[in-house]
Amino acid sequence: MTIAPGLLPEGYRDRLPPQAEAASRLLHRVIVAIGRHGYDRVTPPLAEFEESLVGRLKSARAQDLLRFVDPVSQRTLAFRPDITGQVGRIAVTRMGHRARPLRLAYGGPVLKLRATQLRPERELTQAGAELIGSDGLAAVIECLSVAIEALETAGVTGITVDLTLPDLVETLAAGPMHLPADRIDAVRELLDAKDAGGLAALGAEAYLPFIAAAGPLDTALERLRALDPAQALDSRLAAIETIAAAIGNRATLTLDPTERHGFEYQSWIGFSLFGEGLSGEIGRGGSYTILHPDGREEAAVGFSLYLDPLVDAGLGAEPRRRIFLPLGSDAAAGRVLRGQGWTTIAALVEGDDPAALGCTHIWNGTETIEL
Amino acid sequence: MTIAPGLLPEGYRDRLPPQAEAASRLLHRVIVAIGRHGYDRVTPPLAEFEESLVGRLKSARAQDLLRFVDPVSQRTLAFRPDITGQVGRIAVTRMGHRARPLRLAYGGPVLKLRATQLRPERELTQAGAELIGSDGLAAVIECLSVAIEALETAGVTGITVDLTLPDLVETLAAGPMHLPADRIDAVRELLDAKDAGGLAALGAEAYLPFIAAAGPLDTALERLRALDPAQALDSRLAAIETIAAAIGNRATLTLDPTERHGFEYQSWIGFSLFGEGLSGEIGRGGSYTILHPDGREEAAVGFSLYLDPLVDAGLGAEPRRRIFLPLGSDAAAGRVLRGQGWTTIAALVEGDDPAALGCTHIWNGTETIEL
Repeated sequence: MTIAPGLLPEGYRDRLPPQAEAASRLLHRVIVAIGRHGYDRVTPPLAEFEESLVGRLKSARAQDLLRFVDPVSQRTLAFRPDITGQVGRIAVTRMGHRARPLRLAYGGPVLKLRATQLRPERELTQAGAELIGSDGLAAVIECLSVAIEALETAGVTGITVDLTLPDLVETLAAGPMHLPADRIDAVRELLDAKDAGGLAALGAEAYLPFIAAAGPLDTALERLRALDPAQALDSRLAAIETIAAAIGNRATLTLDPTERHGFEYQSWIGFSLFGEGLSGEIGRGGSYTILHPDGREEAAVGFSLYLDPLVDAGLGAEPRRRIFLPLGSDAAAGRVLRGQGWTTIAALVEGDDPAALGCTHIWNGTETIEL
Repeated sequence: MTIAPGLLPEGYRDRLPPQAEAASRLLHRVIVAIGRHGYDRVTPPLAEFEESLVGRLKSARAQDLLRFVDPVSQRTLAFRPDITGQVGRIAVTRMGHRARPLRLAYGGPVLKLRATQLRPERELTQAGAELIGSDGLAAVIECLSVAIEALETAGVTGITVDLTLPDLVETLAAGPMHLPADRIDAVRELLDAKDAGGLAALGAEAYLPFIAAAGPLDTALERLRALDPAQALDSRLAAIETIAAAIGNRATLTLDPTERHGFEYQSWIGFSLFGEGLSGEIGRGGSYTILHPDGREEAAVGFSLYLDPLVDAGLGAEPRRRIFLPLGSDAAAGRVLRGQGWTTIAALVEGDDPAALGCTHIWNGTETIEL
């Protein structure tokens, strides 16, 4: 079967004008906004040794790598499905000896093996920040603030932050709602799947009401307190309230204590980001632990933003003032006009049509005339 | 063999601070500079069906594709070694009906199968512009001017443009220095390889002196005229002189009439770009013909810039004013400082060390104090 000219593989696409420029502009703005908070940019390569990437992903994600054999090294390489793991690698190797907290930013394309119904694209633009050396409350609040500011810079309004408590089950199981250590993972997974029958079969019915303790922050906190008379969750809930006090005026906060958003590696807090009129999750993050080559563990917190839904919703587009320069126009005049913010379209031959070329104005040699 | 943590495949690298930011800044600047001349950005995907990419590359380059089997489509895909061909595809398919001349810009990573001695990297950043619908003198001068302006914006000085005459042999062979049509390609290749013996064996010794007619523009033009008493090259040489008049004040011009710079598909003019203190070629371009799906041919001219040598030479780096915000600093003060161009580094805990975190200043609650 011959491929029709212009046909692309499923999940790959061309960005055309004006969306291609909007995508580029949004990535630039987001990275600059993150950088202003001291996050220095790193740019890992598009591909790495498969085992390097696998080592930093949990099992479910390792299966999702797009692999190829590199004819030069004769080894299997894989395209990054995510940049976070690469930034972690840099933080513990080439930048392992830099002062902490280490603040790093990144942005670029990632390739997914498979699309999802919500995200039919397999090439996505990811940008984000990682703060390595702390997963304390101040670090989490900084990351959330930077993420919100970056999204605001990109034009996102009506931002919602959905908080999660990744170690909810461990915390409760170590206290009043005892569970044998070997059942903790199973209960987490059943809660994540909202599987009431499975929880009952495991004798963990007491955890079931926590699924329903989700929603707007105040309501969710009230329900959680009612479910936790022994106050095992007190420090977590106090932290959530401190976060709410810090960012509650810039985003709507919700809490879904048993949700994991597909993350398997977060420590005490996770979050997903949503924006008004934007389809699906536009960012996620949380606290986690990073492993050094010498076995030492280091606390970290970070977030990733996915910019394609923003572009698809029309954010980042800016109308350009396009002016036509007729044949014989002075090159210096063009330079001046570009310096004033004009996009100049120079005539190449006598027949060039200013309107067909998208010009809104024409240069008559001394001034700009509206078409 | 286990891969050491942090080891990357040959030819792949991490860009660290401050080079990563410089690379991002240079790409952004170059694309914005190109865009100001009416070149609208398009962003093709990182990979395509192998046969789509091969169809737009000459044989020598098709062997250089980095291929992989896509588990979803069960077809062989390849990573783009170059973006120009993809932009050509877009120009004749999805943008085939847009008004001409069609001006398109692009920028992003490309992946080479093999490194070269001069360029040990296999992941490179390419940016450029294609003007589709004309390969006339005005179009070539515009492209050269835009390329030079983009490089200047990126901080390149001492720019040299090395011009080539891709159809030199065809032009001469059709006139006074007759060659059978089936020998033209062979003579072009022997000239490109500067193979005097080969030319003699083919009875084409008369072409040999053209190799030496290379150098600074004035000298080269003089030698070419002496080698062309029948004036077969007159229109070409007049065109070169017009180009020199247009851009000679912004770049040093040289002419290497028999050089092909690895290009096999250019029509009447080609060029390579060099910059003072930068290793190797930093850009290339020329006129060419693009094929529509219906078989129609269209003239085009364009250029590509390779930004990695600029980054490696330290261009695009900008010292940042980093100010430390001690614990308890007002969030609003941070916003004001960032708005003034400061990069703010917020203390997370009492022990955070401003100097170790790269700060040059500290905020005392009312003013900026130099450290």
